[in-house]
Amino acid sequence: MNESIALQAERIEVGAIEYSSFSSTINGHYHNAKIVVLMDTNTHDLCWNWLQTTVNVLQRTQMIVVPPGEENKTISVCTQVWEALLEYELSRHDLLINLGGGLITDMGGFIASVFKRGIDFINIPTSLLGMIDASFGGKNGVNFFGFKNQLGVFQHPIATYIDKRFLHTLPAEHIKNGWAEIIKHALIGDRELWHSIVQLETLSDDISNDIFERSLSIKITVVAADPHERGMRKILNFGHTIGHALEAYFLTRQYLAHGHAVALGIIAECYIARKLKKLATDDFVQITTFLKKHFHIPKIDHLAVAEIVQLLHSDKKNYGGQIQCAFIDKIGNCLYDQAVTEEICAESLQFLFFNTPEA
Amino acid sequence: MNESIALQAERIEVGAIEYSSFSSTINGHYHNAKIVVLMDTNTHDLCWNWLQTTVNVLQRTQMIVVPPGEENKTISVCTQVWEALLEYELSRHDLLINLGGGLITDMGGFIASVFKRGIDFINIPTSLLGMIDASFGGKNGVNFFGFKNQLGVFQHPIATYIDKRFLHTLPAEHIKNGWAEIIKHALIGDRELWHSIVQLETLSDDISNDIFERSLSIKITVVAADPHERGMRKILNFGHTIGHALEAYFLTRQYLAHGHAVALGIIAECYIARKLKKLATDDFVQITTFLKKHFHIPKIDHLAVAEIVQLLHSDKKNYGGQIQCAFIDKIGNCLYDQAVTEEICAESLQFLFFNTPEA
Repeated sequence: MNESIALQAERIEVGAIEYSSFSSTINGHYHNAKIVVLMDTNTHDLCWNWLQTTVNVLQRTQMIVVPPGEENKTISVCTQVWEALLEYELSRHDLLINLGGGLITDMGGFIASVFKRGIDFINIPTSLLGMIDASFGGKNGVNFFGFKNQLGVFQHPIATYIDKRFLHTLPAEHIKNGWAEIIKHALIGDRELWHSIVQLETLSDDISNDIFERSLSIKITVVAADPHERGMRKILNFGHTIGHALEAYFLTRQYLAHGHAVALGIIAECYIARKLKKLATDDFVQITTFLKKHFHIPKIDHLAVAEIVQLLHSDKKNYGGQIQCAFIDKIGNCLYDQAVTEEICAESLQFLFFNTPEA
Repeated sequence: MNESIALQAERIEVGAIEYSSFSSTINGHYHNAKIVVLMDTNTHDLCWNWLQTTVNVLQRTQMIVVPPGEENKTISVCTQVWEALLEYELSRHDLLINLGGGLITDMGGFIASVFKRGIDFINIPTSLLGMIDASFGGKNGVNFFGFKNQLGVFQHPIATYIDKRFLHTLPAEHIKNGWAEIIKHALIGDRELWHSIVQLETLSDDISNDIFERSLSIKITVVAADPHERGMRKILNFGHTIGHALEAYFLTRQYLAHGHAVALGIIAECYIARKLKKLATDDFVQITTFLKKHFHIPKIDHLAVAEIVQLLHSDKKNYGGQIQCAFIDKIGNCLYDQAVTEEICAESLQFLFFNTPEA
């Protein structure tokens, strides 16, 4: 498939990049522009050579390579990249290409949006999470003082080119990471998609076009309806209230990938939804059983629960000091702006990590 | 006068702040919001007490005080402010008020626009330069590696409240600073305004309402026509190509205020315009004589000229490696996207600092 999907100012193309509009864009509008490709050491080693060979126009680019990992998604790494962009004498008319997973497209989008009050950027996601979620929709940012994406802006890339062949460069754990967002999309907006997913034996890199595109189209539809997250876009945060707190908690401890954290967040937030009598027990059991089967539950100390609850207070969605959550009331439909108490959040973590109280 | 001027998403009110919409805005939309006031030590000492007494709603705010001076308009000071905002647990729905000159509104606008992907901010300019120019129009940013405003975004404040009584808190040199932008506005867009100005004996804080409002309305009109500086907004950069390079050069040496640098930049850029046979000699002589009378020309070494020319290469307006300049072809009209050579820029600096070649 080589498909182009319109999302407001943003262009998303799915398919082999050499048959996409990528080369003609570079040779056309950016004919005279300087082009810098931002990548991390992983995408440098696994993706860059292949991409440069496949798409000749990339021969004339400069590259900036940053260290991988969520712990490097910081303003200090941004500062180093901005310094390099200054050294390359990049002007407002030049272009940044972000080649990588969510970390690179999140951070690179922020770097471009702020440099000289904004230069154009193109995203080429290489991870499943990036393809299905992070690389489009206009949100970018970096972590700050251990809190997720606290600094950033809303700014769409000029275009996002999604080439699924990059998926074969990824370890299995990374693939699962992306599946968490596919599952989230199904749960908030597409019951049929959920039924396709729940029948799968494994969550592998062999993703059917049908599942891939249905998942993509949910995010695209939601973002187009509410690009700046004033209202219904908040349903995309399902699993992310608890998920982000878990990610922040584990940032300084063992590694917990974003998608993995979201999968765990979905379990906890489904617990909350059921406890508040919004979600039926059948749905709850089906979802949590499936997720607990496919996503490892890390070991934590009982005392950690209070610490994770504290981290919920830095969530960007909070309002008037209250924790705000999005959760589903049935598979395929999601509520948002739901105020929840610290107590119920703590209880949901008890369920997630210790299976108490019993479901 | 208590006047409200509409500029797209932005509201500008001129007059006594206690009779403006300020208090009703705070009590209305931001009734439940946390409010933080950003100021520097100067505005803290000279403006804050008076403002808090004059406008009661400010009693319930937190304050953040940063050191004054262009050398503190940095990403590192932003980082400290973001840290403080996190400590105050500011949410997306809360408000930052910037109380100060161009430094505070430029930096504060950037801080707010990036924190949690953007919180609302209100500007209360206290300097003439801020009132006439920096505090509205949507440009914000900080310096980076000694280059002016290299990091920033376009984002309008919710409102700008211009209360001229703050002008009496300023030293004479600061007032002159603002006059440079008033003069620029006259030269690029209002020949009559120029004629009023050129008759003045001194450039004091006693500015007639007529001059103040005519100057303001030029910037407002230009920004409304081209908010993102794709075209004609570039005329507001008249005097700023050479001006920014001068400011950057002096940043690590003696202090050169922004307005002062712009006044010197106007002299140099008028030289360029005349040399390129765009500007008539009469106009050129009248402008440069007036500016050299009112603005001190700092002493520099002949060798500095080459260094200043080098700094021109980081100007945000450059395109395809060429220095781009805006200059007037007559008093009241300005051209933009004018490519200029290093040689003519060097010559204009010779004229500015050493009066050679003779005008």
